[in-house]
Amino acid sequence: MKLLEDRIRQDGVVLPGNVLKVNQFLNHQIDPQLMYEIGQEFARLFKERPVTKILTVEASGIAPAIMAGLVMNVPVLFARKKKPSTLDDRTYTAEVYSYTKKVTNTISVDSKFLSKNDHVLIIDDFLANGQAVKGMLEICKQADVKVEGVGIVVEKSFQEGAGWIKGQGIRLESLARISSFENDTVHFVGEE
Amino acid sequence: MKLLEDRIRQDGVVLPGNVLKVNQFLNHQIDPQLMYEIGQEFARLFKERPVTKILTVEASGIAPAIMAGLVMNVPVLFARKKKPSTLDDRTYTAEVYSYTKKVTNTISVDSKFLSKNDHVLIIDDFLANGQAVKGMLEICKQADVKVEGVGIVVEKSFQEGAGWIKGQGIRLESLARISSFENDTVHFVGEE
Repeated sequence: MKLLEDRIRQDGVVLPGNVLKVNQFLNHQIDPQLMYEIGQEFARLFKERPVTKILTVEASGIAPAIMAGLVMNVPVLFARKKKPSTLDDRTYTAEVYSYTKKVTNTISVDSKFLSKNDHVLIIDDFLANGQAVKGMLEICKQADVKVEGVGIVVEKSFQEGAGWIKGQGIRLESLARISSFENDTVHFVGEE
Repeated sequence: MKLLEDRIRQDGVVLPGNVLKVNQFLNHQIDPQLMYEIGQEFARLFKERPVTKILTVEASGIAPAIMAGLVMNVPVLFARKKKPSTLDDRTYTAEVYSYTKKVTNTISVDSKFLSKNDHVLIIDDFLANGQAVKGMLEICKQADVKVEGVGIVVEKSFQEGAGWIKGQGIRLESLARISSFENDTVHFVGEE
């Protein structure tokens, strides 16, 4: 998605350790028009899939997910990062390790919002090692729903998450695919 | 906003202690179409105000705020609930006490996203005691920006937040105003 790549080139900040900050338009300040275009792009990419629900994780996944939900006319469910106060049969949970923050979070979803008939599209802002997506897939497995695919705003293609998802036979669509960071410059897959 | 009141009547769950759960369309699962209507309503209510930025708090404030930002064509900034790892001049912070969860969170905003020329509209999902709004107003004060108003999705009018905000001379627009809960039924301000 050229609009997104241009915006990453313009406003993205590369930090030591291959960390890309996009606080200008996605992770802290959000550009609603860009998010709407992203929502339209996800809707276009998954238009032949019978998606009934979008699943994401708070907080930065909400903006792209809700715009996709608006265009696709389906509800959006966000997994919470806090462990629920009462763990019972009515809650699906999964452990998610963050390599960036070096902490494990429990993500959780109220079971009443996922039913066996659901066809779920997973959307998230970033894909690196794939831990968050693995957690959401685990929740989808517990809920016995059909996963129609994974939509990612920014993929770090040089890390293992993308390959792992495709290896599971799951359709993955990433709107910007970063092949490397060199001298504080972002390079995208397919660039000369 | 009648559409919202009807939805609260239909899907809201009243818990002991005057807690209203709207997990069906706002706080866990989100209805994107309803959020878009809410965004349009905020845009209509504040249309004569020269808003340059919307400020909210993660995570449940993001959905209504981003739809208002989409309609009003301004960026949306969400305050984070985690204390930043490095506290310095570049971060505005405020303490927010949650009566429901009985914890104090530090909310923070990177100072580069608020400048003196900004005219800020604060948006949040719930208003009860007004702690989150007070925290956002504190951040606006530190940033020396002009606050154009506060937009709330669900106001508990019987608690002190709404009166306090108006007492500061700040314009407050709440789309659903709950006057009381009786026998698990929600009553709105102005109802017979």
